[in-house]
Amino acid sequence: MKKVICFGEIMGRLCPVGYKKVVQATHFEVTYAGGEANVAVSLANYGIRTGFVSKLPDNDLGKSVLRVLKGYDVETSDIVIGGERLGMYYLEKGASQRPSKVIYDRMYSAISMANPKEFDWDRILEGATWFHTTGITPALSEQCIAITREALKKCKEKNISVSCDLNYRKNLWSTEKAKVVMTEFMQYVDVCIANEEDAEKVLGIVAKNTNVTAGELNKSGYEAVAREISEKYGCHTVAITLRESYSASLNGWSALLYTDQKSYFSKKYEIQLVDRVGGGDSFVGALLYALMERETPQEQVEFAVAASCLKHTIEGDFNQVSIKDVETLMAGDGSGRVQR
Amino acid sequence: MKKVICFGEIMGRLCPVGYKKVVQATHFEVTYAGGEANVAVSLANYGIRTGFVSKLPDNDLGKSVLRVLKGYDVETSDIVIGGERLGMYYLEKGASQRPSKVIYDRMYSAISMANPKEFDWDRILEGATWFHTTGITPALSEQCIAITREALKKCKEKNISVSCDLNYRKNLWSTEKAKVVMTEFMQYVDVCIANEEDAEKVLGIVAKNTNVTAGELNKSGYEAVAREISEKYGCHTVAITLRESYSASLNGWSALLYTDQKSYFSKKYEIQLVDRVGGGDSFVGALLYALMERETPQEQVEFAVAASCLKHTIEGDFNQVSIKDVETLMAGDGSGRVQR
Amino acid sequence: MKKVICFGEIMGRLCPVGYKKVVQATHFEVTYAGGEANVAVSLANYGIRTGFVSKLPDNDLGKSVLRVLKGYDVETSDIVIGGERLGMYYLEKGASQRPSKVIYDRMYSAISMANPKEFDWDRILEGATWFHTTGITPALSEQCIAITREALKKCKEKNISVSCDLNYRKNLWSTEKAKVVMTEFMQYVDVCIANEEDAEKVLGIVAKNTNVTAGELNKSGYEAVAREISEKYGCHTVAITLRESYSASLNGWSALLYTDQKSYFSKKYEIQLVDRVGGGDSFVGALLYALMERETPQEQVEFAVAASCLKHTIEGDFNQVSIKDVETLMAGDGSGRVQR
Amino acid sequence: MKKVICFGEIMGRLCPVGYKKVVQATHFEVTYAGGEANVAVSLANYGIRTGFVSKLPDNDLGKSVLRVLKGYDVETSDIVIGGERLGMYYLEKGASQRPSKVIYDRMYSAISMANPKEFDWDRILEGATWFHTTGITPALSEQCIAITREALKKCKEKNISVSCDLNYRKNLWSTEKAKVVMTEFMQYVDVCIANEEDAEKVLGIVAKNTNVTAGELNKSGYEAVAREISEKYGCHTVAITLRESYSASLNGWSALLYTDQKSYFSKKYEIQLVDRVGGGDSFVGALLYALMERETPQEQVEFAVAASCLKHTIEGDFNQVSIKDVETLMAGDGSGRVQR
Amino acid sequence: MKKVICFGEIMGRLCPVGYKKVVQATHFEVTYAGGEANVAVSLANYGIRTGFVSKLPDNDLGKSVLRVLKGYDVETSDIVIGGERLGMYYLEKGASQRPSKVIYDRMYSAISMANPKEFDWDRILEGATWFHTTGITPALSEQCIAITREALKKCKEKNISVSCDLNYRKNLWSTEKAKVVMTEFMQYVDVCIANEEDAEKVLGIVAKNTNVTAGELNKSGYEAVAREISEKYGCHTVAITLRESYSASLNGWSALLYTDQKSYFSKKYEIQLVDRVGGGDSFVGALLYALMERETPQEQVEFAVAASCLKHTIEGDFNQVSIKDVETLMAGDGSGRVQR
Amino acid sequence: MKKVICFGEIMGRLCPVGYKKVVQATHFEVTYAGGEANVAVSLANYGIRTGFVSKLPDNDLGKSVLRVLKGYDVETSDIVIGGERLGMYYLEKGASQRPSKVIYDRMYSAISMANPKEFDWDRILEGATWFHTTGITPALSEQCIAITREALKKCKEKNISVSCDLNYRKNLWSTEKAKVVMTEFMQYVDVCIANEEDAEKVLGIVAKNTNVTAGELNKSGYEAVAREISEKYGCHTVAITLRESYSASLNGWSALLYTDQKSYFSKKYEIQLVDRVGGGDSFVGALLYALMERETPQEQVEFAVAASCLKHTIEGDFNQVSIKDVETLMAGDGSGRVQR
Repeated sequence: MKKVICFGEIMGRLCPVGYKKVVQATHFEVTYAGGEANVAVSLANYGIRTGFVSKLPDNDLGKSVLRVLKGYDVETSDIVIGGERLGMYYLEKGASQRPSKVIYDRMYSAISMANPKEFDWDRILEGATWFHTTGITPALSEQCIAITREALKKCKEKNISVSCDLNYRKNLWSTEKAKVVMTEFMQYVDVCIANEEDAEKVLGIVAKNTNVTAGELNKSGYEAVAREISEKYGCHTVAITLRESYSASLNGWSALLYTDQKSYFSKKYEIQLVDRVGGGDSFVGALLYALMERETPQEQVEFAVAASCLKHTIEGDFNQVSIKDVETLMAGDGSGRVQR
Repeated sequence: MKKVICFGEIMGRLCPVGYKKVVQATHFEVTYAGGEANVAVSLANYGIRTGFVSKLPDNDLGKSVLRVLKGYDVETSDIVIGGERLGMYYLEKGASQRPSKVIYDRMYSAISMANPKEFDWDRILEGATWFHTTGITPALSEQCIAITREALKKCKEKNISVSCDLNYRKNLWSTEKAKVVMTEFMQYVDVCIANEEDAEKVLGIVAKNTNVTAGELNKSGYEAVAREISEKYGCHTVAITLRESYSASLNGWSALLYTDQKSYFSKKYEIQLVDRVGGGDSFVGALLYALMERETPQEQVEFAVAASCLKHTIEGDFNQVSIKDVETLMAGDGSGRVQR
Repeated sequence: MKKVICFGEIMGRLCPVGYKKVVQATHFEVTYAGGEANVAVSLANYGIRTGFVSKLPDNDLGKSVLRVLKGYDVETSDIVIGGERLGMYYLEKGASQRPSKVIYDRMYSAISMANPKEFDWDRILEGATWFHTTGITPALSEQCIAITREALKKCKEKNISVSCDLNYRKNLWSTEKAKVVMTEFMQYVDVCIANEEDAEKVLGIVAKNTNVTAGELNKSGYEAVAREISEKYGCHTVAITLRESYSASLNGWSALLYTDQKSYFSKKYEIQLVDRVGGGDSFVGALLYALMERETPQEQVEFAVAASCLKHTIEGDFNQVSIKDVETLMAGDGSGRVQR
Repeated sequence: MKKVICFGEIMGRLCPVGYKKVVQATHFEVTYAGGEANVAVSLANYGIRTGFVSKLPDNDLGKSVLRVLKGYDVETSDIVIGGERLGMYYLEKGASQRPSKVIYDRMYSAISMANPKEFDWDRILEGATWFHTTGITPALSEQCIAITREALKKCKEKNISVSCDLNYRKNLWSTEKAKVVMTEFMQYVDVCIANEEDAEKVLGIVAKNTNVTAGELNKSGYEAVAREISEKYGCHTVAITLRESYSASLNGWSALLYTDQKSYFSKKYEIQLVDRVGGGDSFVGALLYALMERETPQEQVEFAVAASCLKHTIEGDFNQVSIKDVETLMAGDGSGRVQR
Repeated sequence: MKKVICFGEIMGRLCPVGYKKVVQATHFEVTYAGGEANVAVSLANYGIRTGFVSKLPDNDLGKSVLRVLKGYDVETSDIVIGGERLGMYYLEKGASQRPSKVIYDRMYSAISMANPKEFDWDRILEGATWFHTTGITPALSEQCIAITREALKKCKEKNISVSCDLNYRKNLWSTEKAKVVMTEFMQYVDVCIANEEDAEKVLGIVAKNTNVTAGELNKSGYEAVAREISEKYGCHTVAITLRESYSASLNGWSALLYTDQKSYFSKKYEIQLVDRVGGGDSFVGALLYALMERETPQEQVEFAVAASCLKHTIEGDFNQVSIKDVETLMAGDGSGRVQR
Repeated sequence: MKKVICFGEIMGRLCPVGYKKVVQATHFEVTYAGGEANVAVSLANYGIRTGFVSKLPDNDLGKSVLRVLKGYDVETSDIVIGGERLGMYYLEKGASQRPSKVIYDRMYSAISMANPKEFDWDRILEGATWFHTTGITPALSEQCIAITREALKKCKEKNISVSCDLNYRKNLWSTEKAKVVMTEFMQYVDVCIANEEDAEKVLGIVAKNTNVTAGELNKSGYEAVAREISEKYGCHTVAITLRESYSASLNGWSALLYTDQKSYFSKKYEIQLVDRVGGGDSFVGALLYALMERETPQEQVEFAVAASCLKHTIEGDFNQVSIKDVETLMAGDGSGRVQR
């Protein structure tokens, strides 16, 4: 039986109602989210047994996180309880030319200050067939680098598949530091997920002739990036999400799956955004599911892109769509006709 | 003096706030709606005396329905009080590629289990000049089929105009059953309203060379459908709404009015949707008004399409726009400039 | 040190939640806004010392206005306290073909019934380098005309720059009355802001070959309008905002700055609207700031248009964006990518 | 058949959410209310045919009032449409030692500036058996005094019963003016409703040995007041509500009905308040119903007090309880046990 | 290891915001609740392994229930999926003399129409040490009577402790029917929970000299009731909750635990109510926990009463307090001093 | 001219809507609050020129704090901008036996990690006549102890009056540490405010024969405490708040002012609580105002107690009542009668 372990930070997400900015806010909607937890929820939602590993403070916020994850069928028994605080982030929802804005308040969080000894990876990985983490976790602290390193080494020993979403966060660490750390970690990675910015900032691999801000994409350039990652770091599969950000309200969305030295480009969706945060994670969650449960690379990338297309219409970081919803869209019905 | 009687079910509509799905909802916005009640509200709003006939339970939900309808000037004196429950439906508002989703909880509703003897159509139809119902009502139960049949027969006797919106609902009955029942009822119908799906599913009449999901329309195909309905069932007027569903956020909207063997196509509007549910009913309400109060078929169809275009920007099933609002749009001002 | 005095009315703005109409509303969101106060808030936000002058009733609504303005760093010490009521307006947010709708309840407001003797302009204008008002204020009452006239004369004496946004409001006065009053006042104006409707309705100057409703613009026509205003009334700078209102949800937005007999057209933005009201005022606030702090006319108009483009994505009349936000957009990044 | 006509002003009521003060409010809950309209709604709710007469502006606020009243079965066909504005009031809900606070914004309302000629009392009173108004209406303006006077005279001519709630409002007129006007009007009144403050301020009749602020009541004192009103002005029935205001959260509530020269004191309820505004009006509405439909004075006053006791637990000015709810409380069950 | 199985119905609970009545509601807060599920959540919350058994429809409402229960650590693997609808109930929150009101819409729910064959009690009860149900479940339908009977018999066979809360619901069945069914079932019950009304209505055992409505209690009367239940039906433990309902806002709350032929009365709490629904279930949940984990009967009843006292201050049916919270109150600190 | 400087931390306060607990919350209401800022707002509200000194992060949360304080007329020019985060706290509102609960997330806040060199007290105290701080600030960190020490020394040099609210917070430091630090600081304090717990925990002075939890007070015991503080530390004025916490919903509230070796006990209020947090601070703010502006000690303590009594009915930490509101209550009107 398949079992995925996701490791990383989960935070409180405080979001002003509507399109208000933080300085205008009188109420924040609270949900709980984080790059790896978002993936875990997607996997559990598609029926894959999934555990989330992190450290949470022993207070009502930590307790809230546990309640939410359990509700989504994510196993929480390996979450360490302790530390001082739950990381938080504030999200201002953007529109048109105004970008969404994330204000981090995640310093000194329990996981960022955790002791590597608190995580007994031999026990945690028992029964696991897949391990997933992201480039956000090692960006949090030296402790998190050490914990991640140990987890990755154990996976290697135990022959557990490893996926990693590069997810570069400029407010958490420098590109220099990111390059050093992630370059080391890439040796353990079987499936690497990145967008064009990550590849450049973290691995120094640039998609030529592409201008992200202008919303132009260059297929062969991305293919070259994927090939270079795959060859340089020995990961058999590389997925690159291709976001064309026309505005904060309208995006193009597709992806490239590079596996066994071949490229598979997905269909492209033009999306009117409801909530874009967690979109990339929903791609990863759906991709991991599809890599396990779907036959062909083309089907895999189409599932992942369709699933994450739908997530952009869902409030909150977590994707909430069913396999059937995804398959309907893959089958070509994006007409939005009322279902009744 | 004109007086319209609308017969059917009115339900509670429970809608999660914003774009949330039911599984995410902490609050539902409650309104009251139903295909025939939506038409009744539109008619009363345009100044036509209108009564709504149904059965409502003797509890606070039934009382709420009465209060709402009266507030909209719809006469409620022929609504039967009794039965076990008010039908409800849950509406998840879609966006972009994610469709809006209706979850019915209308089984065992008071009207669906009503006894035909509870409705004294001779009395109810006194003074009425028009009767309107839809294909939803007979889909509810055998009792509703019997009640509808009796009403239609009485209308024939009394020479009351009859309009019927085919409105096929696949979760309520099969196409086979629908065909049998509606084919029988069509003999009583003077004005038939349908969309391309209804015509095919209910009457077996297909618009050739049309691909709804792809959003393509074929004018001559629709004309043929309207003509066939008119000729086959002897209804002098057929209206077909032409929705091009590009996505759950953006639709094209126009209509064909076929009357006296001539076709009148309306202008087409590109609509950014606020609330699409009730859009078709708002077309019917405006069309019936226009058939009574406007001179030319072209003006009639333009009024109906402009009125229902505006409804798509209104929250809730009921249209809330004035005749003046509709005329402003008909006159070409869809610029959305602030009125002050 | 620069100091701007803005004179006019500030009202309570009562806005149904979401896209509801007033007849559907159960709750109104309350903010405080007005043409000149909106400009004052923008200026203070960009770091310009700014005072707002008006008259407010001695009740909790007046007190609320003071609290809000102070929070935005606008000086309020010259606001007169007294009178009977705070003007209010109700705003229905439009979408697609349905326009936003403003319902005024501003008659008999404190400022509209103020006595000119209550405003000691010699004292108020002490230290001021700029005076701003709009064509809304004299439209309120004869008293407001008198107060404005005296302020303008004092500015002339004191060599204080004067800007005026024509801002024609058809529900407040006739074009005839507006023409008489504003024509008189234009002699005092150094910087005149208008849109194509204002120029025609207030000054009788028509942009030829332009059809606003159809969303077509004609650059040379607007240039001619600006030139005519400048020459006829001797104002050295004229700014014309160019709104292409495709619908209540989507607008094109750009502007022309005509100064020293030269025209500078800005870049045009295609905006998906969140809250359009106050958009023009945010242009004026940013323009006045830019006229004071930016070197070239092209930069000035680009700053003003980018700032007000962003305002259309902000809830409420007041712009809330920083100089840095504006500069990011001016530099070409309107991609809406999440900032984190 | 009985038919009551209620005449007066109905306003928008804007209430900050929870216990917030106006200066803290970001949202106002809007309902529509007024002394006489509140009575009309109660009467209609108890099944008495009731019409409300007033003047409303021809805008969406006026339209909202009509919709609400119709929903409550109040007839609105004699409401005059026109004038400049709908009166509004802001309500801060108090608690414990902090009183609820009403901020009026009702000057220049349509009804206060109405022309007496707009009301054709012969037509309005056709079929009426009862007329109700309050001391608030003549306090609004000279026009309202004239309109009320004419209505009262017509009632006298037509032998229609007249009830009047003295309802003194110190922010609307002086006690001197109130005395002059109300003393004149008392000759037409059959049923006079007052509290101890009204009797003193309006009619100069003082309940001896009573200290309202301290929450002490003196039965014989109130009896004397009622007798004096009855004898002096010839009204056969006088009702005095006896509120013991211990705090804004807790009140004692009872009443005295004086009729045919006899006194009937009701049971006293200790009420934990939810919404106290409209409490007195709910007493009047229930009393008028009971005077018409219940046999004994004791039963009449008990019904009125029990009904209005319940209203203090209902949000909004309008009472929403059924006759059965009232009778349950009259029968002694104020235990608040869950009904299921 | 202890494991409790709770069997019954869980419904959607739709509650108007604040103190609004259903006819006033524009929004319902939705939670999920039911007598046995409430007990299950309490038990899981105190650390007892607990499973809930029922039948839920295969739609988003059923899915929501599963998500919620899992979040509270209640095992859901034996819930049957299928049937037509989720039962719902509407709750109007009362205050002062106005009672809270429950409007059921639970007819035809999945569990009420379930087939006994769908529940394989041998498998479900594997590992279970305790079984809990209530008198609500057999009131739903003959099928539910059959399912409950089978479960009870299996418990007898397997020597599993059985607790039952009589919970008479007059809107679900008659006292006659209740007596017949519950009298049969009592033979299987080890721990019987009742209030004075249940004992009388279901078992015909009356607490003498007690007047519930008047809020008077008679200790020896209740002791006699408990003794009679225990002796007549052979259940070793009987718990009787003693609610003194002074009003919908203020209750006295205590209990009697009768076990091994001795009576233990708890301390009495005077409670200012926040949400009274689920209060009795929170008593049962805490009692079952205490019967398993606390030594003395006095401690057991004190724990159950203190825990349920706190629940009356918690929004929603589910108790949310920790063992430590309960112990703090048991230790005498009900002062409500801020904890920080 | 009087000018007060308040020094301490201001935090974001995140409060679940209604009586929800954090684990139930979907929305938090956000306000900004802190012991010394609450005092500053009260002082500014009563017309005293007041500055607040702290350190705030350079992000939107810090910006929000500035906006709020300015709106309340508190001067913010000496607030240092920098550091990593704004302290936050979560507040669960209690009721009846369930206490309100504060969950701190204030570690690593900007002020707690500030460098003493960032505060130039010579400049900050220019023009100041009074300095206020609390025992919370030095509890935050060694840096805060150093900053406070320096401020206090400078006040001594400059002959600025110093007030200090002992405000012991057990989650921030130990009683041992508190005793050492506060004992040192007491030498600088002229006006000491405490409750019985503070005096004991911080200064080791115990009110004999008093049982707080039981809600019993002992006047002579408190007088002895005040005398001892005054004599031991040489502060001429000591104020002790006397809270009788019957429950989280109902408190008794009074105070003792000990000055010039005489005791003045205030009237006692029985308060039904709306929001208890900030109640003590509102007492301090009103007391400082009264010490400056009211003549007699009795009047001073009555003002402070009446003002803070009213605060317990106000949502949020900040008091919002006017001097007139306080005086009305002082004059004996706590009847809560509607003001209109």
